[in-house]
Amino acid sequence: MYSEKVMDHFMNPRNVGEIEDADGIGEVGNPKCGDIMKIYLKIRENRIEDVKFQTFGCGAAVASSSIATELIKGKTLDEAWETTNKAVAEALGGLPPIKMHCSVLAEEGIHKAINDYRVKQ
Amino acid sequence: MYSEKVMDHFMNPRNVGEIEDADGIGEVGNPKCGDIMKIYLKIRENRIEDVKFQTFGCGAAVASSSIATELIKGKTLDEAWETTNKAVAEALGGLPPIKMHCSVLAEEGIHKAINDYRVKQ
Ligand code: FES
Repeated sequence: MYSEKVMDHFMNPRNVGEIEDADGIGEVGNPKCGDIMKIYLKIRENRIEDVKFQTFGCGAAVASSSIATELIKGKTLDEAWETTNKAVAEALGGLPPIKMHCSVLAEEGIHKAINDYRVKQ
Repeated sequence: MYSEKVMDHFMNPRNVGEIEDADGIGEVGNPKCGDIMKIYLKIRENRIEDVKFQTFGCGAAVASSSIATELIKGKTLDEAWETTNKAVAEALGGLPPIKMHCSVLAEEGIHKAINDYRVKQ
């Protein structure tokens, strides 16, 4: 049912945790299943210097969030904004259709965290 | 949002894993979110001697499955059959309404595993 890449990021998620002095924080909930995800950004000169996440969501949510943090690390805010949930699922080698909604958490979390940073400026 | 008991069973789930020579196995999927759960029973003299589970589900599914294994360990098959998802949620100190469907995995998994054992007799 799941690709090797999904299983790898589920078993060994990257960038899990909290950034205490984060410049932007995004917390999102999934209306489909009630799961939540929180993403923390450390930003320097318009670039994502560090990123961490926490989720209570399912394996697909863990894997999506994990690979999404790898995708946006080092990118400019505008580049990171373009990280769609489709791109996240593709980077994972695909997700079963019924689990696509889990990858939406990653996209929306990134958007919310970037907005949070921009509003604070 | 989540009780201390939920967080405890999410962070330190009990009885995670596989029983290689299981007497009954139940695998269930959640139509609501697409998550799966697998439960393994070792049965001796009509009693659940050992039980383990694996899930790719969310935090609430992990916590529900974990506490359900504690609830049924040592019980007779008839007693274990009575473990409803409501009883599981209560043992956890409650679950948010939107996450009640996750505890259904535990109830159905137990039923399927007991049926699997009975059919094999
Ligand atoms: S089922 Fe809720 S995030 Fe995947």
